[in-house]
Amino acid sequence: MAEKVRIVEVGARDGLQNEPQIVPTETKLQFIEQLADAGLKTIEAAAFVSPKWVPQMADHAEVMRGLQQREGVNYPVLVPNLRGFEAAVGAGATEVAVFAAASETFSQKNINCSIEESFARFAPVLEAARAARVRVRGYVSCVLGCPYEGAVDPARVADVAGRLYDAGCYEISLGDTIGVGTPNRTKTMIATVVARVSADSLAGHFHDTYGQALANVYAAMEANVRVFDASVSGLGGCPYAPGAAGNVATEDLVYMLNGMDVETGVDLDRLIAAGAFICGKLARETQSRVARARGKAC
Amino acid sequence: MAEKVRIVEVGARDGLQNEPQIVPTETKLQFIEQLADAGLKTIEAAAFVSPKWVPQMADHAEVMRGLQQREGVNYPVLVPNLRGFEAAVGAGATEVAVFAAASETFSQKNINCSIEESFARFAPVLEAARAARVRVRGYVSCVLGCPYEGAVDPARVADVAGRLYDAGCYEISLGDTIGVGTPNRTKTMIATVVARVSADSLAGHFHDTYGQALANVYAAMEANVRVFDASVSGLGGCPYAPGAAGNVATEDLVYMLNGMDVETGVDLDRLIAAGAFICGKLARETQSRVARARGKAC
Repeated sequence: MAEKVRIVEVGARDGLQNEPQIVPTETKLQFIEQLADAGLKTIEAAAFVSPKWVPQMADHAEVMRGLQQREGVNYPVLVPNLRGFEAAVGAGATEVAVFAAASETFSQKNINCSIEESFARFAPVLEAARAARVRVRGYVSCVLGCPYEGAVDPARVADVAGRLYDAGCYEISLGDTIGVGTPNRTKTMIATVVARVSADSLAGHFHDTYGQALANVYAAMEANVRVFDASVSGLGGCPYAPGAAGNVATEDLVYMLNGMDVETGVDLDRLIAAGAFICGKLARETQSRVARARGKAC
Repeated sequence: MAEKVRIVEVGARDGLQNEPQIVPTETKLQFIEQLADAGLKTIEAAAFVSPKWVPQMADHAEVMRGLQQREGVNYPVLVPNLRGFEAAVGAGATEVAVFAAASETFSQKNINCSIEESFARFAPVLEAARAARVRVRGYVSCVLGCPYEGAVDPARVADVAGRLYDAGCYEISLGDTIGVGTPNRTKTMIATVVARVSADSLAGHFHDTYGQALANVYAAMEANVRVFDASVSGLGGCPYAPGAAGNVATEDLVYMLNGMDVETGVDLDRLIAAGAFICGKLARETQSRVARARGKAC
């Protein structure tokens, strides 16, 4: 098993963008600084998408400009197209992320274009990123199931992941967007993808809708994946959909990795404090079992 | 990996006994019948302990007498000593369970005697059970940590488990009572126990205090354990202790096993309904992610 795992904290983006109430820029900045203080080295900070679609991310440029730059800490931001990329870089972003789906229907519903069209859309992003020496991470959603199509063929996941990699993404995050994956299927899917993109360049992104996220992380580790996306307090999910759940809670992931003697560089107490801070601001109950057990639940 | 797993449903005992409000006998019976209707074959039904210590279990004899006997369904009950055993058998029990701890301090605090004394206490139970052809299951608590002593030596777990097995228990349930275990430590502990008691005669019993339970089940499956204790809706834990958590939710366990094509004989929808029934009676929120996601949370 691994001795080191890198955690990509997505609470400030994937987490907050699902919250109905707009979080003030100053609160976002305090939250992100606390996450960095806890030792996280990759903190997704914003999405440069239209405020028409995601009002919570309307202050993306202010957030990027307000962040203290720290040695060794990256603040990637999501960009849907060249315009988003240019705005992100203009605001100081040095790493961006693009997103594709492994399900045709989900691609249509989520980003209003086919998978093929989505590649055409971010080709110029990757080209501009290369010229500007900006690193690009690729997300693939619905890797273990689609809310519209049901089961998703791992070969399709491998194809989308491989194309993102070939296009220049340094890392591909495989997202179980609706949390329907289970450990053996996770392993099978990763084994299929690894034939196309090596495990070194893969990340796991598991939503905890059915309580399977941490078991899936463990299975993915057995398949040699060493980077995981997580969301402090399990932020995320849609507050209007019953049972919708966020990513695996970073606290619970760190607890597991600590118990496995896997190094993450994250201070669990400070992480719990950052979770308590944002939950307090959102008046939201933490979804982290560890935070609840420590009695710092909010 | 396994093609079959047997689930020991402990919600009606380990779950309910932690609830402060007394549940009427009739409600317990309806609950247990619903669990059997869902396809569970082993349903822990009561504890024949003193009502002074566990008031919730005071109606143990009425519960046992009220249950419909069904072909292939067992209703084990917990017995602390010979007196409890006799009362259980008198009320119709055909399977009982005895409990020991892997931690000396926990043994003292939980059952007021040393580990050695606990063996002396249940020796006559095992003898009487043999004569009466009643099956005995053994529980070992604190197998991955103790609230008083911290880390617990797997060799100590193996010793206690081995002695229970040698004394006549047909199966030893290894309990992570406080939920501090993580997957690799679970595997290491089981590997140590397996040198003394074969995996065929072991069960895993994981509390979900830190969100690790399902990952630990998966790790235990990789170590060839094929029987798991679980509690519908994640019932259990102490309602007065912040963050205390029950067993792994049976719904979430069944979801994982279904996703792994492992047969359990359990109908997930009926199981969710049984969980909703008891949560409604307890006015308690389900701890099952699956139940919440299905929008049948209570």
